Amino acid sequence: MGAPQEPEVDVVTRDSSHNLGILLRHVHLSGPVSRAELAERMGLNRSTILALTAELTAAGLVSEQIPGGTGGRGRPSLVVRPRPGRVYVLAFDVAVDKLTAVRVELGGAIVDRHEAPRPRAGADLDLVVDVLARFGRQLYRTAPAGAICVGIGASYCGMIRPGDGVVRYGPDLGWVDQAFGTALSQRLGLGMPVAVGNEAHLGAQAEQQRGAGIGLQNLIYLHGDVGVGGGIIVGGKLLAGDGGYGCEVGHMMINPYDGRPCLCGSRGCFEAEVGERALLQNAGRPDSEFGRDAVRTVIDDADRGDPAAQESVRRIGDWLGIGVANVINLFNPGMVVFGGMLRDVYPAAAAEVRARIAVNVLPVARERVLLRTSGLGDNATIVGAAELAFAPLLTDPLGVLAGRESATVASGLGARRSA
Amino acid sequence: MGAPQEPEVDVVTRDSSHNLGILLRHVHLSGPVSRAELAERMGLNRSTILALTAELTAAGLVSEQIPGGTGGRGRPSLVVRPRPGRVYVLAFDVAVDKLTAVRVELGGAIVDRHEAPRPRAGADLDLVVDVLARFGRQLYRTAPAGAICVGIGASYCGMIRPGDGVVRYGPDLGWVDQAFGTALSQRLGLGMPVAVGNEAHLGAQAEQQRGAGIGLQNLIYLHGDVGVGGGIIVGGKLLAGDGGYGCEVGHMMINPYDGRPCLCGSRGCFEAEVGERALLQNAGRPDSEFGRDAVRTVIDDADRGDPAAQESVRRIGDWLGIGVANVINLFNPGMVVFGGMLRDVYPAAAAEVRARIAVNVLPVARERVLLRTSGLGDNATIVGAAELAFAPLLTDPLGVLAGRESATVASGLGARRSA
Repeated sequence: MGAPQEPEVDVVTRDSSHNLGILLRHVHLSGPVSRAELAERMGLNRSTILALTAELTAAGLVSEQIPGGTGGRGRPSLVVRPRPGRVYVLAFDVAVDKLTAVRVELGGAIVDRHEAPRPRAGADLDLVVDVLARFGRQLYRTAPAGAICVGIGASYCGMIRPGDGVVRYGPDLGWVDQAFGTALSQRLGLGMPVAVGNEAHLGAQAEQQRGAGIGLQNLIYLHGDVGVGGGIIVGGKLLAGDGGYGCEVGHMMINPYDGRPCLCGSRGCFEAEVGERALLQNAGRPDSEFGRDAVRTVIDDADRGDPAAQESVRRIGDWLGIGVANVINLFNPGMVVFGGMLRDVYPAAAAEVRARIAVNVLPVARERVLLRTSGLGDNATIVGAAELAFAPLLTDPLGVLAGRESATVASGLGARRSA
Repeated sequence: MGAPQEPEVDVVTRDSSHNLGILLRHVHLSGPVSRAELAERMGLNRSTILALTAELTAAGLVSEQIPGGTGGRGRPSLVVRPRPGRVYVLAFDVAVDKLTAVRVELGGAIVDRHEAPRPRAGADLDLVVDVLARFGRQLYRTAPAGAICVGIGASYCGMIRPGDGVVRYGPDLGWVDQAFGTALSQRLGLGMPVAVGNEAHLGAQAEQQRGAGIGLQNLIYLHGDVGVGGGIIVGGKLLAGDGGYGCEVGHMMINPYDGRPCLCGSRGCFEAEVGERALLQNAGRPDSEFGRDAVRTVIDDADRGDPAAQESVRRIGDWLGIGVANVINLFNPGMVVFGGMLRDVYPAAAAEVRARIAVNVLPVARERVLLRTSGLGDNATIVGAAELAFAPLLTDPLGVLAGRESATVASGLGARRSA
């Protein structure tokens, strides 16, 4: 009753663009990889891999070379790698404290970057889009001649409507229902849409693709700043929920009757208890201090023995542990990854976090869970945005490439870029 | 570049057992369904449906008939329905307060049932398996002559290791690492394994397949008794986590510094604040009262104006609302379903729950969520266990049927049953 093996020619014909995308994704995510390895990972025979690789090579997307220095028996399997300079994406990040734009090549290397501090006040849609579009056009103009932009992605610190990049709710910047994706696309003027995602969702995917938890099926990414965003991978996929608004770990209520006020209007939310403000206020710092540097100062002071700073870190650690224990009980993940300012907080408060896990997580659910700081550091969210931008290319490489090539010629954008 | 349509003969040959299973699943879950409807749902043409239906009819699993009374134009599409008396499963439920066994026919009808109160003390593996195996053999003996048992499933109020049915942690009965599935299979002596699942996981799947949330992609089922179990459907699938131990909503900490003691050894867990004991103790009831009837008495007394009962229901409702708000923020579900004793508590405390959702859930995540009591009532968990037992048949109908027929003949079980 099992499905018989299909003849390979059938596979090549029927699933060609699909398999081209899968092969390119392997090369993009894991770098130089041998044809033999590709054949094994994709469950295809070598002659099929040869045919697929030839198509991608002809399109200029990959190159092949003989691996150096092995000198083993027999003919070594050729290594396939992304070809530099052929295609790239633009990725943007609207974070609490800064605005960033990068150019990312196939293979994932960030090859160019612009960033600016985000003004704490007056950061309306116009101002943010203005800064980002200026950065984006600079990146586009200075890309190598002949290189093709195949996608644009953006990470935003708020709740994003899937499909059209509308910011439904962005408490840090005070945005409600702002058409961010459309506005940025128009201001860039490159004739391409901008795919927008929530920063912690993108961070989770990036950590699972390129960071601390490569290949894990169940992973939780916690991104701390003023608030705490969550990105949760369940069974290999981002938990989206019905509207794309799941993963709001930051507003999990953990201190309902005695909690600190939260930006959402409630009290005692996870992010109110462990966010930047709680850490700074508990340590007795003046209201004028904020941001990553201020957080690091408290942690450094705690290391040096400052009692108020130590007590603040200890309290934050206990609340962080409560929230982490809750999500471990709910998701039975293989790993919890701490990103944003939690990259600094977690190592300082690891004892408190582990103590809470030991008490609050059911034994069978804590048997194997790992706790890690972000493998991608402050790039986690923008790397996720870049992957969002690469997604169409990795679904249909030749189709997307042909579409962008003709669009570039038709619009004269190619000429403008080399001007 | 799109995948061309495959010739239909290819589909029938290659995916025959797969498609037979899918068709049988449609008939099993949605009852009598026309060939035309099956063709549309499965994306196959009518002649393929005809061929598949003929195979299932020949195997005795379905029957076809002309629908009555439509009188429209043209020839009416034949209706396919499960054939009664041909195959069935046995399903068991080890709940906090009782032990249940049922026989369930293809199509989902519960056609026979035995149940007994579970003793609060001394309910060790031997005793539980003894009672269930006795029930199971009775159900087997009294099944119609010629009917074939195609699977056995069990629901248990604790954490179950996937694959082998070991109860890793069952606080209500005090079980740790007990080989429940294997023991029940051996004691039944039917030559079949017993597939075991956590009661709330199975309840969630049953509610999504046959209950309040049919077809929903994101659904949360909360099963209350002494504790609160959770079953969470994410993107159409049960959230399992790395080891199958996810969904432990009951041990989400919501009252860390002032909480009631929990059976898990911690304090302030969701289930400690909203479980049966909290309701009864807050209402000032004596420790000798427990169980579903005692819960209903408090709720009835609250309805009649008893101030202590009213205050207890109000407090439970507030905590219930906090927990429900948390899972809505995390999962952005289409529906939250209240099962077990929460079927009684939620209607009495709906105002408190809705008030917490209004304050604590981010507006975009509460836009469309529905709150419902279980559509399957007290059968939710055992219906889930029956579906677990049907799963192999619905994957490979003819293979499973042939296997069971030959096993029954070889072991003489068929003869014993008709004796």
